[in-house]
Amino acid sequence: MKLPFSKMHGLGNDFMVLDGISQAIELTPAIIRRFASRQFGIGFNQLLLVEPPQQPDIDFKYRIFNADGSEVEQCGNGARCFAKFVRDKGLTIKSRIAVETRNGIIHLHVEPSGMVRVDMGVPILEPVKIPFKAEKQAVDYIIRDGEDSFEIGAVSMGNPHAIMLVDDINLFPVRQVGRRIEAHQDFPQRVNAGFLQVVHAKFAKLRVYERGVGETLACGTGACAAHVYGRLKGLLGPEAEIKLPGGSLHLSWAGEGANVYMTGPATHVFEGVIDL
Amino acid sequence: MKLPFSKMHGLGNDFMVLDGISQAIELTPAIIRRFASRQFGIGFNQLLLVEPPQQPDIDFKYRIFNADGSEVEQCGNGARCFAKFVRDKGLTIKSRIAVETRNGIIHLHVEPSGMVRVDMGVPILEPVKIPFKAEKQAVDYIIRDGEDSFEIGAVSMGNPHAIMLVDDINLFPVRQVGRRIEAHQDFPQRVNAGFLQVVHAKFAKLRVYERGVGETLACGTGACAAHVYGRLKGLLGPEAEIKLPGGSLHLSWAGEGANVYMTGPATHVFEGVIDL
Repeated sequence: MKLPFSKMHGLGNDFMVLDGISQAIELTPAIIRRFASRQFGIGFNQLLLVEPPQQPDIDFKYRIFNADGSEVEQCGNGARCFAKFVRDKGLTIKSRIAVETRNGIIHLHVEPSGMVRVDMGVPILEPVKIPFKAEKQAVDYIIRDGEDSFEIGAVSMGNPHAIMLVDDINLFPVRQVGRRIEAHQDFPQRVNAGFLQVVHAKFAKLRVYERGVGETLACGTGACAAHVYGRLKGLLGPEAEIKLPGGSLHLSWAGEGANVYMTGPATHVFEGVIDL
Repeated sequence: MKLPFSKMHGLGNDFMVLDGISQAIELTPAIIRRFASRQFGIGFNQLLLVEPPQQPDIDFKYRIFNADGSEVEQCGNGARCFAKFVRDKGLTIKSRIAVETRNGIIHLHVEPSGMVRVDMGVPILEPVKIPFKAEKQAVDYIIRDGEDSFEIGAVSMGNPHAIMLVDDINLFPVRQVGRRIEAHQDFPQRVNAGFLQVVHAKFAKLRVYERGVGETLACGTGACAAHVYGRLKGLLGPEAEIKLPGGSLHLSWAGEGANVYMTGPATHVFEGVIDL
């Protein structure tokens, strides 16, 4: 079977995207791993599979697979690419799209500029729900690791994030500190470690050491968590640009209890056909 | 302009392959670097551009570009993929193909099995032509590095190789020793460092630390150089299988002054179309 696919990226987080609406596609973890190989296959961080919705008033279902073949919940950069894909392929003409994911319903808005705005939901600050071992909810926490201690914020966007303020993101040893925070005992499911340099109230720079992956070019949920922490600290306004190594996202958050909105680009790279 | 391409690999050494016969293709280093990016582009070790020949009695010209946009001379794995490509695309029906490269004329033979045999030319053993600083030509040389010394063979297949015998290729610290040999002062243009474990006269295992790259899945010229050294040492026969991390090559060398023939697979992965 000849399988058409699109290769896309959101700020360098790259995807193989498959239309499971026009054709039924059966994937196994072994096939996904073969496709994911950068030398022997197509190469991607995640595979996005677009399927028909199973609930009423929803436009699509979309599933996300990691390169190892496991299915995962959430990917902010992938959601933007999904929205561009279904419009480019003529699967919808809507600019507001509701999509089922394993993490619940996500609402997307394709703006006239082509940028995609994603409703990332309400950030979770209660330690037990992050999950994070802390006596009570606070803006900052101190976690101790051997003789060192780190001052962090803790936020879940469906996945756990620890955010630490730094003076100069270019000089900061992200890998060394990131791996220590990622594996810290106070985060029982481990944690994504974000390092945030606030330049002014509307602009910050961020590098993220992703759980189980290492530093990446862009982490959408990490940018949301960093904006939330910057807001709670009074350092960032309700609207801010957050610049990641792969490019910039625009974040919007009115404050505690409100949804976070993330706006950014989705880029089509090439069309391909591979034997399934 | 929509540019069709094939993605191929030879034992995991991967290529974007372009038909410059049916259409004129103008590439710049900036375009090649964009295509080469694994996240933002297509991703490959080298780009192969097939062009019309400039000499009589030659079937094609083919050019090889590294991911940084620079044009290079030689690539054994690329030559096999080139041969499969021109036949799959109907650019020739010949099974014996003569092709111009920057390094001279190469003769290729596509076998009925689909395996491709490449005439890799006569190995160069004279130290000054490798180039390697040695008093006179020998089978083995000792190079000293600080308090350590390494016993190596030195062979050029158009590019310089140092080959060292090891007892167990899986346990050998290829990266640590490879980087020291690669940069050794006795090789004024640096060197590819191969580590060879001879299992019996017809079978050996090889890992190669490539000059300027690090360890790779498969180095075609490295396999030729290793076979030549194994032959000169009396450890390998005139025909041998050399197993690299990406898979096996079959080598044939009659002895000093004869050409080396390398036979191996060429694998098509997918077809693509990208905007130029």
